[in-house]
Amino acid sequence: MSEFTNVTVIREANVYFDGGVVSRTVVFPDGTKKTLGIMQPGEYTFTTGAPEIMEILSGELDLKLPGSDAWNRVGGGESFDVPANSSFTMKVLSLTDYCCSFLG
Amino acid sequence: MSEFTNVTVIREANVYFDGGVVSRTVVFPDGTKKTLGIMQPGEYTFTTGAPEIMEILSGELDLKLPGSDAWNRVGGGESFDVPANSSFTMKVLSLTDYCCSFLG
Repeated sequence: MSEFTNVTVIREANVYFDGGVVSRTVVFPDGTKKTLGIMQPGEYTFTTGAPEIMEILSGELDLKLPGSDAWNRVGGGESFDVPANSSFTMKVLSLTDYCCSFLG
Repeated sequence: MSEFTNVTVIREANVYFDGGVVSRTVVFPDGTKKTLGIMQPGEYTFTTGAPEIMEILSGELDLKLPGSDAWNRVGGGESFDVPANSSFTMKVLSLTDYCCSFLG
């Protein structure tokens, strides 16, 4: 278990796909943001603005990154990068806890 | 929208009822704790240790408090108190965003 200290948390949740994906936004002292979220099983396509690092804290999903036709299994303790201004698709196989860092 | 500043957030989610209810723990400078959570539609019974204040940020549920046989509708912007060492049941009717404060 780990924690973020001296941060600001936006109280209201971010809700996507009718609650299939929900997250809270955490703002760090340097102004950078992360979201801590939960994905229910299902298939979700997200588009990015800034580049992102998705860290899977627990759970399991199949991932298709932009420009690829391949699906790759990602599980707890693994992470992946998503380029700016792109889209990626996840088939979430079991309840997935994640931390998404927004870069730049 | 509102925010909690200068807090610590536990990164890993709390997961209940196979993900029907998930939350993150926020620790304040005075050591008190709140959880920010999401409930999917469904029926959930929770037991309390410390007394709690449940604030419904959005969503809708029917609530049965300890010692009562009555169900009462609770919606966004409303809150309710739960005594220590008791149990309460919620029938969540639509995706519900909440903030739970633990007292004493």
